[in-house]
Amino acid sequence: MCEANAYLIEGEEEKLVMESVDTIEPEEDGVKLTSIFGEQKFLKAVIHSLSLVDHKVFLKE
Amino acid sequence: MCEANAYLIEGEEEKLVMESVDTIEPEEDGVKLTSIFGEQKFLKAVIHSLSLVDHKVFLKE
Repeated sequence: MCEANAYLIEGEEEKLVMESVDTIEPEEDGVKLTSIFGEQKFLKAVIHSLSLVDHKVFLKE
Repeated sequence: MCEANAYLIEGEEEKLVMESVDTIEPEEDGVKLTSIFGEQKFLKAVIHSLSLVDHKVFLKE
């Protein structure tokens, strides 16, 4: 499997918002994250950057 | 390894722009893609969506 953990960048900090993320899709004024377990979460943010070998996705408001 | 292929969404089409992408970082008015082999590419685009289990990253101008 090739899932990643999603972090929200808040100033100098990176806050873990979801583990084992499969898809991230734009939706209205934010993004919808879906984990490999089917868990869903909506965040008012955009996809900022990726570091896939580290299994990290960074979001930013 | 957990790299993905990056596709640029152009209308109805998805054009493969880089294979085996490791990182994508914002840079000026676009993004810089770096593959696991160290290859780099700059595109005037944003990260649109992700489908990590399918190893796909979608960019859009």
